[in-house]
Amino acid sequence: MSNRAPIVLTGIGASAGIAVGPAYLLDRGRVRTPRRPLAPGEAESELERLEAALALADRQLLEMKRRVEAGEGPEHALILEAHRLMLQDPEFGGAAKKLVRDEQMNAEWAIRRCARKLRSAFGRLGDEYFRERRHDVTFVADRVVRNLMGRIPDAAEEIPTGVVLVARDLSPADAAVLLQPGRILGLVTDRGAKTSHTAIVAHARGIPAVMGAVRASELAAAGDEIALDGERGTVALRPEPHQLVRFAEAKARFARTEQAFERERTLPSRTLDGSVVRLNANLEFEIEIPGVARAGASGIGLFRTEFLYLGRTDLPSEDEHYEVYRNLVIQMEGRPVTIRTVDLGADKMPMDRLRRSEPNPALGLRALRLCRRNPEVFRTQLRAILRASVHGPVRVLFPLVSGMIELRAARAALEAAREELRAEGIPTAQPEVGAMIEVPSAALLADRIAAEVDFLSIGTNDLIQYSLAIDRQNREVAYLYQPLHLSILRMMQLVVDAGHARGIPVSVCGEMAGEAQYTLMLLGLGVDELSMAASAIPLVRRVIRASTISDGRELLQAAMALDTADDIERYVRTTMEERYGQLLGGDTDAEADLA
Amino acid sequence: MSNRAPIVLTGIGASAGIAVGPAYLLDRGRVRTPRRPLAPGEAESELERLEAALALADRQLLEMKRRVEAGEGPEHALILEAHRLMLQDPEFGGAAKKLVRDEQMNAEWAIRRCARKLRSAFGRLGDEYFRERRHDVTFVADRVVRNLMGRIPDAAEEIPTGVVLVARDLSPADAAVLLQPGRILGLVTDRGAKTSHTAIVAHARGIPAVMGAVRASELAAAGDEIALDGERGTVALRPEPHQLVRFAEAKARFARTEQAFERERTLPSRTLDGSVVRLNANLEFEIEIPGVARAGASGIGLFRTEFLYLGRTDLPSEDEHYEVYRNLVIQMEGRPVTIRTVDLGADKMPMDRLRRSEPNPALGLRALRLCRRNPEVFRTQLRAILRASVHGPVRVLFPLVSGMIELRAARAALEAAREELRAEGIPTAQPEVGAMIEVPSAALLADRIAAEVDFLSIGTNDLIQYSLAIDRQNREVAYLYQPLHLSILRMMQLVVDAGHARGIPVSVCGEMAGEAQYTLMLLGLGVDELSMAASAIPLVRRVIRASTISDGRELLQAAMALDTADDIERYVRTTMEERYGQLLGGDTDAEADLA
Repeated sequence: MSNRAPIVLTGIGASAGIAVGPAYLLDRGRVRTPRRPLAPGEAESELERLEAALALADRQLLEMKRRVEAGEGPEHALILEAHRLMLQDPEFGGAAKKLVRDEQMNAEWAIRRCARKLRSAFGRLGDEYFRERRHDVTFVADRVVRNLMGRIPDAAEEIPTGVVLVARDLSPADAAVLLQPGRILGLVTDRGAKTSHTAIVAHARGIPAVMGAVRASELAAAGDEIALDGERGTVALRPEPHQLVRFAEAKARFARTEQAFERERTLPSRTLDGSVVRLNANLEFEIEIPGVARAGASGIGLFRTEFLYLGRTDLPSEDEHYEVYRNLVIQMEGRPVTIRTVDLGADKMPMDRLRRSEPNPALGLRALRLCRRNPEVFRTQLRAILRASVHGPVRVLFPLVSGMIELRAARAALEAAREELRAEGIPTAQPEVGAMIEVPSAALLADRIAAEVDFLSIGTNDLIQYSLAIDRQNREVAYLYQPLHLSILRMMQLVVDAGHARGIPVSVCGEMAGEAQYTLMLLGLGVDELSMAASAIPLVRRVIRASTISDGRELLQAAMALDTADDIERYVRTTMEERYGQLLGGDTDAEADLA
Repeated sequence: MSNRAPIVLTGIGASAGIAVGPAYLLDRGRVRTPRRPLAPGEAESELERLEAALALADRQLLEMKRRVEAGEGPEHALILEAHRLMLQDPEFGGAAKKLVRDEQMNAEWAIRRCARKLRSAFGRLGDEYFRERRHDVTFVADRVVRNLMGRIPDAAEEIPTGVVLVARDLSPADAAVLLQPGRILGLVTDRGAKTSHTAIVAHARGIPAVMGAVRASELAAAGDEIALDGERGTVALRPEPHQLVRFAEAKARFARTEQAFERERTLPSRTLDGSVVRLNANLEFEIEIPGVARAGASGIGLFRTEFLYLGRTDLPSEDEHYEVYRNLVIQMEGRPVTIRTVDLGADKMPMDRLRRSEPNPALGLRALRLCRRNPEVFRTQLRAILRASVHGPVRVLFPLVSGMIELRAARAALEAAREELRAEGIPTAQPEVGAMIEVPSAALLADRIAAEVDFLSIGTNDLIQYSLAIDRQNREVAYLYQPLHLSILRMMQLVVDAGHARGIPVSVCGEMAGEAQYTLMLLGLGVDELSMAASAIPLVRRVIRASTISDGRELLQAAMALDTADDIERYVRTTMEERYGQLLGGDTDAEADLA
């Protein structure tokens, strides 16, 4: 096969939309690291060379930080700061220098070796959020090695306008600087995941992206025409005319759908039989706020606050928390904002990140439990939330509640923070308080919990994992992650009924909430609110507007009569295809035609 | 304070009974490891010295193995074999040799350093069972370092008769050889846990033991009089006369209780209102079988089969499995034996022990899931169980069932194994099949599961951990491990009711079952069988014989009206003290008087 032949690759659709244009190869993959023993007496000059490369990397990151600072929120700056901290980490730069001295080997090799070690340390962390940071190690090591080899990365202004960026991987830091809408048509990477920050940046800026398109950066040549579908995750290198026609059709279809969604944005999410289900957005970064407005969300159902703790050696101050919450509340213009208190594990607190390695971190010192051990961390956040609550409707959501003792302690901490602020003469409102139902024991105790909160929010991701005793990040058991497991449906039913018996709303905020396949089932369960990625809202709204609650109940009842999750999944899928086939976009031929 | 003053230490009661006698110090704690750079050219002779010490350690272990082989079952030999394998492990002996060469340091230091590294690798394993093996690393390293320093450990015959052994720690291997009843009166160690194999050996041989009596081996001098209470976990060094009187009284009390238990051994475990609750024993090693008979157990409610996989590079053969099961079934003389299929994690399979490190092994590839991945491992065990089933009543118990697909697959594997054996002309019986209910989803689906098995067995230890999302091995969250959490009681109630609706018995086999404090509560739940450490049976039988089911229901109902696990625990404790104070041995003054 000639290298110039057309090739179709399949990756992960990371940011929806179609792009066609010339490829711009950001780099030729990973730099090959030379490995050579030093000549006698060469160590000192090698150490100077390494020192210079580290210093240059720091300056580069500072410059990037300066460029993004003014922009879309604090998160880009935080990520760049995290990279700078890594450069200074004794386990990174320091260890590399020691290696050069002890092993009498060259600096590039030493950097790679330290990176490998650090990556494996991060890889052992239990939580996906921080396990992901091992990629940062690679990004920082790549930068230093490139500097050592005099291969300075492309600056944003060197990239011509109207290209599709192709890279082996793109760090969130580079994404923040390079992904300029209007200038960059699309992004294709060999690696990366849909949940990566790079994907979030691309999506927030409306740039179509396919990630995990294996070997794309090797197979593409500079200037090659490239077409990508960021919804389906397909990439065509040097496409043939008939393929280009398909992409053009997909682009038109995408535009039509976007326009339709835009028209439906303000329609109520009400069923045919008149029940209104509030559709909220899950949010992690300020950069995502415009997307929330575009989707017509009723509010924020889950604001994750973990990013505030990212990439720093100290803890965020009360004012830092407050700035972020206030901005969000103000930008949401009166729609409710649900702030989840910090859901980090012990291995993720800035003070001792890699130190406290727990054998089963998912069953360890996390979330409310960590806050109990570090009351100051909790107090700081609660004060900031209370202060922000005067700017608009705020709800406080406590994660990982397993029983009444924890819930009451958390409420007491909130009350104490309010008392403090009152004593200091600082105004606060009275935010509503809710409990995440994501631990099986909480589902079983939902009636008792419901008596002491203003709302319940079912976190299906964790609830499924704990209930089935699986870590879905573990590929060996991921097949057991089945949202429609009868036990999960039964627990959700318990929770919804418990909430309604007390007259409080019940929300679902796990991934299940954003899957249109499951919407009718969730209507049948009787949930009052769904919270999901903003991009999922338009389709879910359509399903709701085309359904009745009694259809949902019927589906649920039939499904719960089946025995296995496989059977239930199949039944629900078939029913949904029959009823909503067109609406759910059953147009699956296009992809097959491309190949 | 003079070193000769009396001292009272508190440790863990690891094997009940009272012993008084002269201390025999097995060793003076850990050998201080010298650390010195080698002289130029010394490496070769140092490597020879290390080689010799490793070879000597191997001969010592082989000799110990020869001594225990004939004895009480295969487990001692397996442990010694595990130690021998460690000597040969490239990460141990091999790595130490490399260190001597590369670092030009002495062999003792190299061994310690490799041991530290290996220990931390084991320490990261998720499962307690294999995490415990890090102690073996210490035991083996100690042996090699002693050999290097010419400090050959005491042989069994050098220890005089009628002494109390005092040691910093005692490996299970040493325990098997040294703890000879009649010769050794008692055992005191600075370290160790109640669940250690050393504790099991001491208990099986009726030797009182206190473990974890911090600094005992430093504070005691050879020949010092020493008194220990292996139930309360108290140790008196150089006791004063009034203390000796207390120990004598305790000894008489212990003997009276033992005699009373012996008289009650054959009494039915029937409540005052006529319900019979079968009392079964949990069993791990053949050495424990005599204790099962002494306790008058109705059968084996849980035979753990993990030890068969311990300390080997290959997998146990079908015949090895079969021998163990057949022996057990025959020795139980017609009482039912419940064999739980292997409940190991991926990190514990001999083929790739430390390789597959999972971030959350408790939520990973374990038990039935591992058997699905390694059908040959499962098939071998199932064939052996089926073959043993012709020798007496055998029940098969599947661990970690989370839903119907897993349960059906396991049943199908059992059926396939039976078909195979039938085709080969090998006789089998039709063992009853049960499911462990230890995953929250299984508790929620107990009605469906009950329809397809012959019995249910609630594994409270794991059920509590998964339901509350805690790893109780993690000290930071162990406080959340609350057996009387309302959510747990509700789940257990679901399971018992589901079993009874289908007319099948429901057993409880977690630690809860052996705590007499919880017996009345379990009667209230309506459980049909309890399975526990054999030593716990006599007391639980007493409580049952002094109770009515309706008392139990009343207690349960009152407890379930309370909100927090703390309140429930307090209420149950108070009620039990009021009703059964004397029977439960409320004699708590003795300990206070000693100090």
